[in-house]
Amino acid sequence: MNEFEHPLLRRELVDLHRVLVESALVAWTAGNVSAKVDDRHFLIKPSGVAYEKLTLGSMVLCDLDGHPVEPDGLKPSSDVFAHAYVYRHRADVGGVVHTHSAYATAWAARNEPIPCVLTAMADEFGGEIPVGPFAMIGGEDIGKGVVETLAGHRSPAVLMRNHGVFTIGGSPRAAVKAAVMCEDVARTVHLSRQLGEPLPLDGADIDRLYDRYQNAYGQ
Amino acid sequence: MNEFEHPLLRRELVDLHRVLVESALVAWTAGNVSAKVDDRHFLIKPSGVAYEKLTLGSMVLCDLDGHPVEPDGLKPSSDVFAHAYVYRHRADVGGVVHTHSAYATAWAARNEPIPCVLTAMADEFGGEIPVGPFAMIGGEDIGKGVVETLAGHRSPAVLMRNHGVFTIGGSPRAAVKAAVMCEDVARTVHLSRQLGEPLPLDGADIDRLYDRYQNAYGQ
Amino acid sequence: MNEFEHPLLRRELVDLHRVLVESALVAWTAGNVSAKVDDRHFLIKPSGVAYEKLTLGSMVLCDLDGHPVEPDGLKPSSDVFAHAYVYRHRADVGGVVHTHSAYATAWAARNEPIPCVLTAMADEFGGEIPVGPFAMIGGEDIGKGVVETLAGHRSPAVLMRNHGVFTIGGSPRAAVKAAVMCEDVARTVHLSRQLGEPLPLDGADIDRLYDRYQNAYGQ
Amino acid sequence: MNEFEHPLLRRELVDLHRVLVESALVAWTAGNVSAKVDDRHFLIKPSGVAYEKLTLGSMVLCDLDGHPVEPDGLKPSSDVFAHAYVYRHRADVGGVVHTHSAYATAWAARNEPIPCVLTAMADEFGGEIPVGPFAMIGGEDIGKGVVETLAGHRSPAVLMRNHGVFTIGGSPRAAVKAAVMCEDVARTVHLSRQLGEPLPLDGADIDRLYDRYQNAYGQ
Repeated sequence: MNEFEHPLLRRELVDLHRVLVESALVAWTAGNVSAKVDDRHFLIKPSGVAYEKLTLGSMVLCDLDGHPVEPDGLKPSSDVFAHAYVYRHRADVGGVVHTHSAYATAWAARNEPIPCVLTAMADEFGGEIPVGPFAMIGGEDIGKGVVETLAGHRSPAVLMRNHGVFTIGGSPRAAVKAAVMCEDVARTVHLSRQLGEPLPLDGADIDRLYDRYQNAYGQ
Repeated sequence: MNEFEHPLLRRELVDLHRVLVESALVAWTAGNVSAKVDDRHFLIKPSGVAYEKLTLGSMVLCDLDGHPVEPDGLKPSSDVFAHAYVYRHRADVGGVVHTHSAYATAWAARNEPIPCVLTAMADEFGGEIPVGPFAMIGGEDIGKGVVETLAGHRSPAVLMRNHGVFTIGGSPRAAVKAAVMCEDVARTVHLSRQLGEPLPLDGADIDRLYDRYQNAYGQ
Repeated sequence: MNEFEHPLLRRELVDLHRVLVESALVAWTAGNVSAKVDDRHFLIKPSGVAYEKLTLGSMVLCDLDGHPVEPDGLKPSSDVFAHAYVYRHRADVGGVVHTHSAYATAWAARNEPIPCVLTAMADEFGGEIPVGPFAMIGGEDIGKGVVETLAGHRSPAVLMRNHGVFTIGGSPRAAVKAAVMCEDVARTVHLSRQLGEPLPLDGADIDRLYDRYQNAYGQ
Repeated sequence: MNEFEHPLLRRELVDLHRVLVESALVAWTAGNVSAKVDDRHFLIKPSGVAYEKLTLGSMVLCDLDGHPVEPDGLKPSSDVFAHAYVYRHRADVGGVVHTHSAYATAWAARNEPIPCVLTAMADEFGGEIPVGPFAMIGGEDIGKGVVETLAGHRSPAVLMRNHGVFTIGGSPRAAVKAAVMCEDVARTVHLSRQLGEPLPLDGADIDRLYDRYQNAYGQ
C-alpha cells in the first residue's frame, strides 16, 4: 500500500497543499506541490483532485521522467513533466510548487518582472522575480523554461508568461515559502505602483540584505 | 416530506452553496445554485434565505417552467425562471449558478468581456468570457440572454450587463467550478490591466490548451 | 441584572456584531450596531470593547436622548447620540449600524456618492448611495446629517464625508444587511471604475428593480 | 525554566502574534511583537519561527541592549536591536510591533506619508503617518529611524522606507492596535486615491478628534 511508503513526506505534502489553500494562492484544483524522495523518485499531487480530499495515499510516486511508479494508481498532476525536468536538472532542489496566485500571475500576463523595491524581496529573492517564456502545459517545455530562467537569478520564484508561478526550494516547505512570499511581494509592489513609482533599492543593499537573510536569519 | 426525495442532490446543493460563501462569491443572500433532477424538474435555492440556514428540505423542487411542485412550500429564488429557461433550452446542462461576484460584475458593469490572456482561462473557458444583454430580473429574459450569448462561445460563464454572472455545467458542481474560476480569472486579468496591457494568447494555443484540459486533465 | 432584560434582542445584537466582523466591515473596535427596544429605549454596543468580548450583559440600554439607563454600567459607544437622534426623528427605524468599511469609506473621503450602476444597487438602495456632511464625532451632528441626507433618498445607507457609513433598517438585522450590501456594491463599482466607466442604469429600470426587490423578494 | 517567568505577558505576546495573523498583517514569519518586562528587559518573538508554533517558552527574554538573557536559548527576532533601541530611548513605550502589511508598505516603498483624510486617522494617529529613512536590517539604525521620525508626530506608527511598518504603544496590545489601524487606514486612503483625491481634514478638526478619542473613548 503506497500510503505506507514515505509517510512523513506524504504528510508534509498534504499539509503544504493546505498552506496553499489557507494562503489563498490557489482556486479550485489549480496548483500543486511536489517533493523529491530520493535520487530516482518524487511525490506529487494527483491531477484534478480537490485539496480537501487529499490523503497520504493519494500523492503519486513518480520516477524522475515523470512516470507514475504504480501504473494503475491515480494520475499525477498534468504539470508532472515540468516538475520532473526541474528535479533532473537541479540536484539542489528538494521541492517544487506551482500556483496561479493572482498578483504574481497579473505580472506574468504582462510579461513584466517584479522589481526589487522591498527589503522583503531582497531577503528572499535577492533581486527581481524574473519572467520565463510562454510554454505549453503538459510537456517538458515549462520545466525547461523554469530551469533556464532561474539559472540567471538568485530568485527561487519565476513567473511563467500568461500562466503563473513556479518556485523551487531545498525542501518542499522552502518552495511553498517562496510561493507565499512571491505573492506577498507581487501584491505589495503592485499596490505601490498603482499610485506612483516605488523607489529602487541599491544593488549593494540588496546584496547585504540577501546575505544576512540567507545566513543569519532563523534558528 | 420533500427532504426525503433526492436527498443526495439536495445535500450536494447545500454543500455547493457553502462553497459559494467560502469562495467569497456572494454577499448576504445574493446568489444561487440549481440542479436538474430529471427531464421535468430541478431543485433551486429558496428566495432570500440565509446560506447558513439552508437545509435539504429548504431546496425548492420546480418544474421546467419554474413553478414549484409544492404550492405551499418555500418560494424559489427570484431567478427561477432564468434557470428554468436554461434547462429547457440546453439539454446538456445539469446545473446553473448565479452570483454577483465582485471582479466579474465589475467587467459586466462596463459591458466588457474578459479577454483570454491566461492559460487558466484557455483551459476552463476556451476563449473570452462574453457579456450578455441587460435584462430585467424575475422573468425569462435573463435565461434567454444567457442561452443566446453562450451559444456563440465555449465559455460556461456569461457576464450579464450591469448585473452579475451566470454559469452552466454538466453538473451543479461543474457550474460552481465555472463560477469560482470566472471570478478568479476576472480578478487576475483586472489586476494585470491595472498596470498595463496583458499579452494576448495565440488562438491556436488557446485551442490546444482547451482541448488538453477538457480531455486529459483530472482522473 | 440587565442581561435578563430583552435577552433575545441582546442575543441578536451580539450576533450582528459578529456578522460585521465576519463580513470584514470593521477593524479593532471601530463599528457598532444598535437596536430600538421600545418607544423610549434602545440597546447599543459599549465604547471601545473588543467584539469577541461582547456579551448579552455588555450591551448598554439607553434612553432616546442617548443617556444610559444604568449610570454605573458600561459607557455606550461614542456614537450613541447619533443613534439616538436617528431613533427620535425616524419612527420607522428599528436598527442603526455604523462602520468604516474600506471601499465605502474611500468614496466618502472623496465626497462622492456611489452611482447606481448595478441591479443589486437598484434592488437594495433604489438609486445612488448619497454622501452626508462632515460632522464631529460625539454629538448629535452626525445623527442630524444622517437623517437629513437620507430624507432625499430611498437608500438605507449614507456615506458620512471623511468618516464612514451609517445604515438604517426596520430591524437591526435589516440595517446590518444594508451595511454589508453597501460595502459590497461600493467595492464592485470601485473596481469597475478602475478600468473605465460603468454603464448607467435607466431610471425606470431602477424603479422596477427596487419595487420587485422590496415587495416580491424573499419568503 | 523561562516559560514560568512572566507567564501572563508571554501569554499576551503569543495571543498578539495570532492577532497579526488573523488581521492578515504578516506573511510566513515576517513580523514580530515585543513587550517590555521591566526597566531592564523585554520579551520578543524568536527569529524565523512559524506563528502557529509559538509558545510561552519560545518568547526570548532580552536585556535592553538586545542580548538574550539565556545564551543557549532561541535566537531573538533579527529586529531585536531595533526594538531595544526604542525601549532605551522611549521610556513611555511598553510594546513594539513590526510588520510588512501590504498597503502600508506600498506607501513606504514610494516614500510617501499617508495623509490624514479620515476621522479614524485623526482619532488614532492625530495626523499623517510619517515615513522614516531606509535603514539596514539587523542593527540599531532602524530603531534610531523609528524614534527620530516619531519624535515629530503624534502617530504611534511609522512607515520605514522600502521596508514596512513599526508601531509603538504603552502596552504591546496598544502597539498591535496601532499596527491594525495603520493597515486599515493605509488601505482606505489608497482606495480613495485610486479614483481621485480625498478631501483633506481641517487641522483643528484633527486636534478635536484626536483629543476626544485619546481621552473620552473606551471604558
